[in-house]
Amino acid sequence: MMVTTAGEQKSVAVLGASGYGGVEFLRLVAGHPNLEVAYCGGHTSAGERLGDLYPHLPAPLGDTVLGGLDVEAAAEAADILVFCLPHAAGTDMIAQAYDLGKMVVDFSADYRLKNVEDYEAYYSVTHTHPELLQTAVYGLPELHRAEIAATRFIAVPGCYPTSVILGFAPAVKSGIIDTGLLIADSKSGVSGAGRGATLTTHFSEVTESFSAYKVASHRHTPEMDQELGGLAAGDSALQVTFVPHLVPQIRGILSTCYGVLKSDMSVADVHEVYSEFYADEPFVNVHPLGKLPATKYVTGTNRCDIGVAVDPRTRRLVAVAVIDNLTKGLAGAAVQCINLACGWAETTGLPTIPCWP
Amino acid sequence: MMVTTAGEQKSVAVLGASGYGGVEFLRLVAGHPNLEVAYCGGHTSAGERLGDLYPHLPAPLGDTVLGGLDVEAAAEAADILVFCLPHAAGTDMIAQAYDLGKMVVDFSADYRLKNVEDYEAYYSVTHTHPELLQTAVYGLPELHRAEIAATRFIAVPGCYPTSVILGFAPAVKSGIIDTGLLIADSKSGVSGAGRGATLTTHFSEVTESFSAYKVASHRHTPEMDQELGGLAAGDSALQVTFVPHLVPQIRGILSTCYGVLKSDMSVADVHEVYSEFYADEPFVNVHPLGKLPATKYVTGTNRCDIGVAVDPRTRRLVAVAVIDNLTKGLAGAAVQCINLACGWAETTGLPTIPCWP
Amino acid sequence: MMVTTAGEQKSVAVLGASGYGGVEFLRLVAGHPNLEVAYCGGHTSAGERLGDLYPHLPAPLGDTVLGGLDVEAAAEAADILVFCLPHAAGTDMIAQAYDLGKMVVDFSADYRLKNVEDYEAYYSVTHTHPELLQTAVYGLPELHRAEIAATRFIAVPGCYPTSVILGFAPAVKSGIIDTGLLIADSKSGVSGAGRGATLTTHFSEVTESFSAYKVASHRHTPEMDQELGGLAAGDSALQVTFVPHLVPQIRGILSTCYGVLKSDMSVADVHEVYSEFYADEPFVNVHPLGKLPATKYVTGTNRCDIGVAVDPRTRRLVAVAVIDNLTKGLAGAAVQCINLACGWAETTGLPTIPCWP
Amino acid sequence: MMVTTAGEQKSVAVLGASGYGGVEFLRLVAGHPNLEVAYCGGHTSAGERLGDLYPHLPAPLGDTVLGGLDVEAAAEAADILVFCLPHAAGTDMIAQAYDLGKMVVDFSADYRLKNVEDYEAYYSVTHTHPELLQTAVYGLPELHRAEIAATRFIAVPGCYPTSVILGFAPAVKSGIIDTGLLIADSKSGVSGAGRGATLTTHFSEVTESFSAYKVASHRHTPEMDQELGGLAAGDSALQVTFVPHLVPQIRGILSTCYGVLKSDMSVADVHEVYSEFYADEPFVNVHPLGKLPATKYVTGTNRCDIGVAVDPRTRRLVAVAVIDNLTKGLAGAAVQCINLACGWAETTGLPTIPCWP
Repeated sequence: MMVTTAGEQKSVAVLGASGYGGVEFLRLVAGHPNLEVAYCGGHTSAGERLGDLYPHLPAPLGDTVLGGLDVEAAAEAADILVFCLPHAAGTDMIAQAYDLGKMVVDFSADYRLKNVEDYEAYYSVTHTHPELLQTAVYGLPELHRAEIAATRFIAVPGCYPTSVILGFAPAVKSGIIDTGLLIADSKSGVSGAGRGATLTTHFSEVTESFSAYKVASHRHTPEMDQELGGLAAGDSALQVTFVPHLVPQIRGILSTCYGVLKSDMSVADVHEVYSEFYADEPFVNVHPLGKLPATKYVTGTNRCDIGVAVDPRTRRLVAVAVIDNLTKGLAGAAVQCINLACGWAETTGLPTIPCWP
Repeated sequence: MMVTTAGEQKSVAVLGASGYGGVEFLRLVAGHPNLEVAYCGGHTSAGERLGDLYPHLPAPLGDTVLGGLDVEAAAEAADILVFCLPHAAGTDMIAQAYDLGKMVVDFSADYRLKNVEDYEAYYSVTHTHPELLQTAVYGLPELHRAEIAATRFIAVPGCYPTSVILGFAPAVKSGIIDTGLLIADSKSGVSGAGRGATLTTHFSEVTESFSAYKVASHRHTPEMDQELGGLAAGDSALQVTFVPHLVPQIRGILSTCYGVLKSDMSVADVHEVYSEFYADEPFVNVHPLGKLPATKYVTGTNRCDIGVAVDPRTRRLVAVAVIDNLTKGLAGAAVQCINLACGWAETTGLPTIPCWP
Repeated sequence: MMVTTAGEQKSVAVLGASGYGGVEFLRLVAGHPNLEVAYCGGHTSAGERLGDLYPHLPAPLGDTVLGGLDVEAAAEAADILVFCLPHAAGTDMIAQAYDLGKMVVDFSADYRLKNVEDYEAYYSVTHTHPELLQTAVYGLPELHRAEIAATRFIAVPGCYPTSVILGFAPAVKSGIIDTGLLIADSKSGVSGAGRGATLTTHFSEVTESFSAYKVASHRHTPEMDQELGGLAAGDSALQVTFVPHLVPQIRGILSTCYGVLKSDMSVADVHEVYSEFYADEPFVNVHPLGKLPATKYVTGTNRCDIGVAVDPRTRRLVAVAVIDNLTKGLAGAAVQCINLACGWAETTGLPTIPCWP
Repeated sequence: MMVTTAGEQKSVAVLGASGYGGVEFLRLVAGHPNLEVAYCGGHTSAGERLGDLYPHLPAPLGDTVLGGLDVEAAAEAADILVFCLPHAAGTDMIAQAYDLGKMVVDFSADYRLKNVEDYEAYYSVTHTHPELLQTAVYGLPELHRAEIAATRFIAVPGCYPTSVILGFAPAVKSGIIDTGLLIADSKSGVSGAGRGATLTTHFSEVTESFSAYKVASHRHTPEMDQELGGLAAGDSALQVTFVPHLVPQIRGILSTCYGVLKSDMSVADVHEVYSEFYADEPFVNVHPLGKLPATKYVTGTNRCDIGVAVDPRTRRLVAVAVIDNLTKGLAGAAVQCINLACGWAETTGLPTIPCWP
């Protein structure tokens, strides 16, 4: 039984609709009682039918013809403008949309980092609108719910950071671990690399293989430092060692988060810290003591499932957090934030039960 | 934007809730505005929490404790009794439920075949309620919509037959192919074999492998003969050569259906026959001329996508039909039939857009 | 225990070494006691280290630097020139190498078809050396062993045709089936599409999906007609309906071959026809009555495994043939032919036992 | 070109031939010029044809009929007895075979640990032959080459420990990292779980999923402590935090090994430490500076490929080591040790080039 909230309708424009993030967002909008698509735009895909780009999309959605990356047209057509573009590609358009008074949702990294130096160092580009960095809200409701509810400018978090921040947050906030020794060993499905066809996304090269990449140099690292550092009450020195890996599966991220407990704590004690921290969260699911989640538990849903363990020999905390990188890690988080910013029930239109198997 | 029909609520009891068919049905019910789960029962799983059997199921569904395979308790609790049991295991229970005046939906083969000899020959068991075979309606709305709307006893078709019958139906009904030379070469994902752990479902044995099995002897064959024979206007001699194969993927069936055209027809002519036949069907999607569907187009949805081609050299018709074996091939078909039998919009609560990728 | 034949050494030059066919050939040469690599050449890859293109290749092979597609340099360096180039790209080079008196092995379709019209129609290109079409030998030892042993110009068969021809050959040659009604429903792993990065080879698009393509129009069709037509004693009208499919696995082809038996035969009779036909073949393995092979049985080996079944209701013969598309379907066949043409034991250096699982 | 050493023949008996370890060993023996199989034995599989258990095995190997787990018969037939049995199942048989004067190779954990308390604590069983623990040699040639060459009792290391020990060894031995803070985050393909059919190895449950298990409690942990502790010159306190994960692929282990550098070192410095340590190793391949290996690079081979990185912000060393869990992680290591113990070239009969793709 699904209960739907009645209520107002808002329309969305999706700029960059032809990528995996855009298509996942369209799927969620199709199941959302308060949202409807008013405009789809693309760059190289302008003028094409969605159904030709994505033949799995039936009519009428498949019959939508993409317009250009035209902010004015999008703003004319829609209440909410969602930008699903690579970093730097949409920086100016987003500022323009915000100036037009629209609600703006950005899937890229452009407005996530408060410190413009971090952005420019990690992304090797000059930020053209640094004045908006303090305006945009980091769209992780579990840490910034009130700010999201009060904004019309949402920077959707990166997929890896979502899993790592949620995996460490209770331990960092409660002060039970040494913030100087955080390691996040993350594993992501191939969809995180997008729809571009390269050797890295080539079936025959990736299948039956597992690899690490961008060790300690991935662009998602400063988001983890910023958000966990914020939780650690001004511990600006907090720096996560972050190592991403590629898993031969389509969707899903699992982050294994390692910390050193400051004092002897049982796994039951740690489990209680986590359970309390997330007690009221509609999408974070702390598994029972002794149980750990798999990525498949959350495929296609907006959930983040977490399990905790302790190595008493080395006083090591191990938290395992899983998300679907395209849902809770991207388009689902966007919908969750839109729900909050529009004053709707936070869970509206967001799946929590995956297909199984 | 999702539009939901307001209206009455009905409750369902799921007997055999711990198999893949049952769990898929529970997923669909969770998204259905008019249905709610009132009872879950199992055999060996009686007494267990659903969330222990399927840790991907969050509360409150995961907290459901299974009862036994108790028809009286189920009938007391629910309006509709859904049986997700192996063939022969539920024959008597289903008859009992029908006698109690309940709406009955059977996932097994027990009440699909009108000819009891076929059932007993293919399933090597004596049917204990042959008197009900003419009462049950074969739950393929595309062929039996009116009967389904008027019944309270639905035999859900087999997964392979759904794809093969829908793949051949326009050609057989219109008489453009020789009914004496039908070949269905079908390929199914591993979920069709259920949750039982055997070498046939063992990851390391199945991955990176493709195989044929039960060549020309699979139990789903007589369903194809019955339904396509019915379409062929009394061609009781129609016999499909059916060869199933196992694909290393979880969900999805693709059936390649071969027939010999009686006269020279272009592929455009054939395409028109198919397009017209399915013009009003909400879940059958004939792809544009020259396009063929892939199984992934319909994963998790209730759709059947079809493409057609012709080999002019050999006057051969080739129709390609894809379904999700657990949705349109099982639990989704059940919901579609329940919608019809309850007088609701046929599409209520049934997904048509898959996760992509 | 591996027994190796002592004997002469021959050197090979590999033109087009950077594709999957070339790399598979290099793997086999590395395990061959009589062959060594003297030259590797490529087009866009000229000047690169093999180990940079394929980091799985250890030194010393990985340290090989590719030269250009230089026939003279290759002919200077090596006894045997192996061309692993796309069709039409090497037509002239191959003729040049043959004129230089070298043994020539061609992986492409350029010299497979005896009828130049077929080649030009299916490949949409004018053949620049049609005078050599009768000189080249179709490199399928099971049909042309004596010719291969006497030639120095080998056209390696296509991967699909190898499986389909071997699947039908005993039935066609013995005349037990109607040659007018042959259907080959083939399924191939993704490696058949090569290393080019496209949506067709994109992990996230292909995984968990199964599809048909190029129905009744694939370029491998005329090879099947030519070779099976030849077996059928001048039945120039023999035309196979050929439908290829894409399986979400890396290697392997399974072809399900359908024919109509001219008279009532038991599966045991058919099995005997196949067993006798292949009794002396070192790489063709007819499975016991009632058993069918899976593609995984032959991964990385030069085997072709075959199983047969009969649908007595429709008098249909169903033969299932599996190969590794890159080994018996390409590079392994090349080595098998080289062994024959060099007078070595036919099985020299060719694996028959796959990794399992 | 493959060069084979001429020389003496030895025969092997394989006890427990029907598991994945046994079958991988048989594959390697089939390609080994000095070894031949004289006896295969099994427990529940006694009396069966190997080809019925593993239909991918062609004759003559497939025609082998398994005997029982009969040490006397095996010792009568063969020079070398290889035990591929679960821990504790073969403890006594192994002792018996050793007493008979045979060369003994054990795939299980029974004789790996020098400290019987560790074995009994981690495996929950009383060791019946603790007096042999100091006799058996831990079969990791990279650390114990001379001992292996001088023994006839080899305890083959666990698959995870092989990757973790080789990943940490240069850093621990050279003293550049703090031995108090070692973390091994390992990922293994499903074949590590063996051929037993359970939900953990069920295709539909495992595919498209990634999970952690036995966090900080896996039985392979004390092997890592023992061997790395030994390298650390008597640092008996060395304790690795070990977290294994399950990857949806068949073969391959990747271990991400985290240590804290005692002083500021560049990645080039660390790379030199690793390169020198493994300079003469025939199977360990340190990748060039800036490159990291994937599991697929070593599938089916006896190689261990290693890459290193440094996070200068946190002074963290990250070493990534990959092996094939069934080859270098089990059966290949056994052959490597047998080669050494027999005085043959260490690389005899061991593949180093995988199938690609």
